[in-house]
This record gives sequence, C-alpha cells and structure tokens, in this order.
Amino acid sequence: MCQPPAVGLSITLSVLAESADASAALVIPSSPVGDRTDVEAVRAFARECDVVTFDHENVPAEVLAALETDGVILHPSRAALVLAADKLAMRRRLTEIGVACPLWAQVCDAASLRAFGDEVGWPVMVSTPKGGYDGKGVRVVGSPDEVADWLSDAARDGAQDSGPLIDGLLAEQKVDFVRALALLVVRSPSGQAGAWQVVETVQTDGICTQVLAPAPGLDPHLAALATEEGLRIAGELGVTGVMAVEMFEVKDPQTGDPAYLVNDLAMRPHNTGHWTIDGAVTSQFEQHLRAVLDLPLGDTSPRAPWTVMGNVLGGDHLQLYSAYRHLLARDPGLKIHLYGKGVRPGRTIGHVNVSGAELDDLRSRASHASDFLQGVITE
Amino acid sequence: MCQPPAVGLSITLSVLAESADASAALVIPSSPVGDRTDVEAVRAFARECDVVTFDHENVPAEVLAALETDGVILHPSRAALVLAADKLAMRRRLTEIGVACPLWAQVCDAASLRAFGDEVGWPVMVSTPKGGYDGKGVRVVGSPDEVADWLSDAARDGAQDSGPLIDGLLAEQKVDFVRALALLVVRSPSGQAGAWQVVETVQTDGICTQVLAPAPGLDPHLAALATEEGLRIAGELGVTGVMAVEMFEVKDPQTGDPAYLVNDLAMRPHNTGHWTIDGAVTSQFEQHLRAVLDLPLGDTSPRAPWTVMGNVLGGDHLQLYSAYRHLLARDPGLKIHLYGKGVRPGRTIGHVNVSGAELDDLRSRASHASDFLQGVITE
Repeated sequence: MCQPPAVGLSITLSVLAESADASAALVIPSSPVGDRTDVEAVRAFARECDVVTFDHENVPAEVLAALETDGVILHPSRAALVLAADKLAMRRRLTEIGVACPLWAQVCDAASLRAFGDEVGWPVMVSTPKGGYDGKGVRVVGSPDEVADWLSDAARDGAQDSGPLIDGLLAEQKVDFVRALALLVVRSPSGQAGAWQVVETVQTDGICTQVLAPAPGLDPHLAALATEEGLRIAGELGVTGVMAVEMFEVKDPQTGDPAYLVNDLAMRPHNTGHWTIDGAVTSQFEQHLRAVLDLPLGDTSPRAPWTVMGNVLGGDHLQLYSAYRHLLARDPGLKIHLYGKGVRPGRTIGHVNVSGAELDDLRSRASHASDFLQGVITE
Repeated sequence: MCQPPAVGLSITLSVLAESADASAALVIPSSPVGDRTDVEAVRAFARECDVVTFDHENVPAEVLAALETDGVILHPSRAALVLAADKLAMRRRLTEIGVACPLWAQVCDAASLRAFGDEVGWPVMVSTPKGGYDGKGVRVVGSPDEVADWLSDAARDGAQDSGPLIDGLLAEQKVDFVRALALLVVRSPSGQAGAWQVVETVQTDGICTQVLAPAPGLDPHLAALATEEGLRIAGELGVTGVMAVEMFEVKDPQTGDPAYLVNDLAMRPHNTGHWTIDGAVTSQFEQHLRAVLDLPLGDTSPRAPWTVMGNVLGGDHLQLYSAYRHLLARDPGLKIHLYGKGVRPGRTIGHVNVSGAELDDLRSRASHASDFLQGVITE
C-alpha cells in the first residue's frame, strides 16, 4: 500500500519479499525474495537501499543489530522497534514515562499470576510478549490453570535465555471500557510530527471490523489529551515513521469523566489507519514514506466529515471476483482495496472505505460491503 | 498513473515499455521493452493480456489491425482510436453526427486554403492531421505562404498514399473564444457511461498550464448541454474508456448566449483530467481501468468544492529534488505528482493538485508550486 503514493512522489521502492507472489512483489518491480530472519539476506538487500523500514515488528533482534552495525539507516530505529516487538518491554517503558495504561504485571509462574488477578480482579488478560497479532497469543483467563502451558514454556525460556525481555508473560487488568479508540501519529527523524483525528475501532470477537473517523461524539478535551499523549510517546520513544496508538475510552473511576488508557502501539502504518487512504489529505502510507525519508510531512486533515473503513476477512467463498463486481455496481462511491492475498477464512484480505456526511449511511454501506465480500450475506 | 488504482483494485498491469527506464516500467513489475510500431512485438505482448488499452493515439493503424485480427480485446477499439489519431477524420465524423465545431476544411493546396481563409477570416489555424501534440503540428497563419512547406509535403503524400485520411491539411477557423473548457467522460463496453464536472483549462502560449475544477461561473445550462453532447459523442463513436473533450466557450453570434464548440478529443486519460486523482471520488485512471475491463464505473463526484491542477514543465534547473522538498514543507496540503521522466525544458514532468473551498487561494498555491518546480521563481 506504500506503492501508490510512492508512484506520485517519484520514490522508488524495493521490497524484500517472502515469496515471488507476495502482495508487495506483485506491484513493486524491485522485489528480491528473501527470508527476513536470514541476516545475510537482509544485509545484502539493505545495501541497495537509502533507507530501510518495516511493515511488521517481527524482525529478529540480531537482524536489526547487524543492519545497525552496517550503518544502514533504519526507520523506525532498532531501539524503537524492539519495544514494538515485545509487549513486556513496551509496558515497562510506557510506565516509566508515565503513560496511563491498564494495570499490568510480568508474571513468571502461577503464584505471581494469582497474586495479580486477586489484586486487580478476575478475569485477567494474559499475553505472550512476542509475536501476538489480531488476538493470537492473548487469553482471557479466570485462573492460572488456563495458561499452565504458557507458564511452563515461559519458565523454560526464562531459565535458558540470558536477556530479561522474554522472561515471563504479560498479565493485564481486563478493562471495562466504553469503547476502543485509536490514534495515528507520525514523527520524522528531524522531529517534525503530526497526528490524524482520533478514531473509534469497532471490535467483533477481538478483531477490528470497522473504523469510524472521527470517533463519534468523542469529548474534544479527551481527543486533545490523547493526541498530545500520542505525540509525546512518539518523541520519548524516538519513533520515526507512522505509529498507531490503540486505546480504551474509560470513565475516570473518581470523577466519571471520560479518560483513556493506552492499550498497544504499532510502529508502522496500521489497519486502524487505512481510512486515511481515501479519507485524509495525506494517507498514512504517503506520510510514512515522507517520514522515513525525512521529507516534510503532509496535511493530515480529513477530506470528508466522516470516513468509515470496513475490514474484509477471507470468507467461505474463495472466488472474490463476482462479489467484487457486484459491489462496484451496487455502490459507485465505495473504495475497495484488496491485497492480492490468497483468500483464507479469517484472514484480512482487504478493506473498504466510504466517505461522506451521514455516518449511519456510511456504516451500513461499509458493513454491507464487508459482509458481502466475506460471503456472510449474498445480496 | 494507472498503477496506483490498479494496486487497490487488485488489477495486474503489464506495459509495453519504450525503454527499461520508461516511467511506467519503473513502477510496474511486468514491463517488457518493445517498439509500439513493431507489429510482432505488440502482438506477442498482447497475447499475454486480457485487455489492451493505450496511453496515446500514435499507434500505427497496421498494428491495431493485426491485434484486431488476432482477436485481442482493444479498448478503445481500432475504429474509435483511428479517429483520435487523425484530426481530419475526426472533424469529418464529428460534423457527420452534428457536433458544433469551429468551421473547418480539408485543404490540399494554397488555393483551397486561401479560399477557406477568405471565407472565415484570417488568420486561420492549420494542422497536420496526425501526430500533433501540445501545439506541435499546429500553426496560426495569415496566408498560405506560411505553410508552404506543409502543403508541398501534403501534395506529395496525397499522390503516394492510397487512403484518404492523410490527404491534405486541416484548416480551421480561429475561434474568438471566451475561455477553453474540457469535459471528461467515460463509457464502458456494455454502455455504462459517466462524466465528471466541466473544467476550465487555462492556456499559456498554447499549452495548458492550469485546470480549474469546476469551471468557475459556468452557466449550468451550458454545462448540462456540453455534458450531454460529450456522452452522445462517446456513444456515437463507440468510445470505450475515458475520453477528454476539449471545447471553447463562445458567445452565440445571434443571441449572445454562452455556447460551446468542440475543439479536440482524446480517447484516453488526459492531462485535463489529472485533477480527478485527488479531486474526485473516482479518478480518471481508476475509471479507465474499470471501463476497459467492463467493470461497473465509479462515482465521478468531486471531493471538494474546488480542485486546481497545475502542470509542471521541465525548467532550467535539472535537479528537482531541492525544489520538491521545499514545496512539501511550504504547502503540506499540496499533492505533487512527478512522472519519473528526465527533466527537459518545456516537457511536462509532473503536476500538482490542490483542493479546498477558496478558488483564489488554490490557484495561487498551484501557480506557485508549478513556477517553483520549473525554476521560474526561487522562493
């Protein structure tokens, strides 16, 4: 999704592709195939680039270290990216800099998890610190028994590993939130920064199914506070490029006023920012390119009063084409974005955006399109 | 410029590139190098495609004929494209179907040109029927002597050539117009059609320097008439894909009411439609892809009250980068589109779009950006 803005800005992309038919390789002429965990392959690739960036956090620390040693310009930097790849390290750092988060603890055994749960109240969220994505690697548990397998793995890893970062599991308070919010910010190496409007992310079974931009009825004071905090986090952590901040909107237990808790960070263009492709003057992908190249940042203003993004998950029917054709005919204002991925049930294979003045209308159009492409409905 | 929407729509493009470093080849993985005048090269390329379309009219008739014989799906069709490539054939056809055009004549010698000029008034516009582009191949002449060279070429070609289409020159009345307008329409093989709003094209020395969308203060009745006529032309000529209709706004000599004359057609996405990339829900490039694939067409509504497009011509300074960086910083809302072409004085190397509510502000921002990138101004 960086290729469309790269074309306009005359920026030449090169992608280290996991396979010759990877989505990005289908649309970027320079797309050597290589394994991101193969240090020499990544080093050879990076030598041909002016700047290297990442489309996910799962790059091994030793690969990042080798690139840094080679003097490759990395955005985000190794120091920032390792935080995004390790939920425990991230929580520790956010707590150090005073960011409001759900209560959390590093737990290494059943006793410490039980103590945490008894303190904050059951059930609690337990995560494996690394490799989690879209709800995988997270469990909501009512007792330590429900993560006995993970605890025994963690005990074994902790005994073997020299570093502290993967020592244990992350236990978190299960927050009674009003709704989920997300904020997209950007920061360039020279320190220029920007933010898009705060959005609501609608979750279904722990997966983001729809994003409403801006978050309807959000208290302006809370929006300003959250935006200020997102920009502060980006600065404190030395983030370069786009960063998504996932938050919960909660009620302050003392005052009852609206407040937020920071739930997660992603240091890259993020699903909760896909609405910007059609809904903002500068999309997150254009902005990420500008930022990592240290070019001046673009205007983050919305293009319309409302934009709704609907995720499209792979569904039961493997042939998308007839559904796609039908939707183009049914809703000429719908912007469909498919990723050229194979269709598998539950896999995110694309999204739709729709912009306009009537939120309810936009939501129903986006829902219809998502459901139709997923085969949940047939008309 | 078709690649960005192709990425979103998951349409795989392949381009027959004039060279390995052609603009399109830099952004499209499948880009075999070949000569568009080499019948066998084009046939081999077309065999790998579901549909073939064109980014200019200068494809030899014998190449089109060979593709048609091979059963290749061509959009626009050979029959339509030969009209776009030959101004005399085009004028003849438009006159047959009753389209209001400037007065014109096919002239083969000085006597016929003199008779035409004496009838409509000097000076007159004289064009070579084929290969004209951006004012090349057009002269404004006060007497036949000023095109003596072309007339002798035409006489020689006319004697040699069996077909009537390149027999002679096109002489046209020099219209006293209020301003130049352009209309972009689209038509799909199954007959679905659409139009964007009528725009004003600001000409400087015969070259379009700025496009104002919509045309400021245009009489709504004239806009409706012109749009209806553009759609009728597309239907009558069997155009498939996007077609640009360049027009003059004139005063009706009898009534003094605003009227239009059709000046030129282009059967492809066109410079006068570049504003749609950022200014319309569906850009001309996305729409052209939808149309030639006979997919349902997209919404042509504007995204903002006004969009101004400014062309960027190659200027004196060959290094664009510092100017580009400066402009990104100066105007974060500016959308810069560079074509990855070598910079040569006078060559169109890109364009800028800017959208908003205040036309004067947008015009001055677009002018500044064009002038700055061209090196006409330095701050």
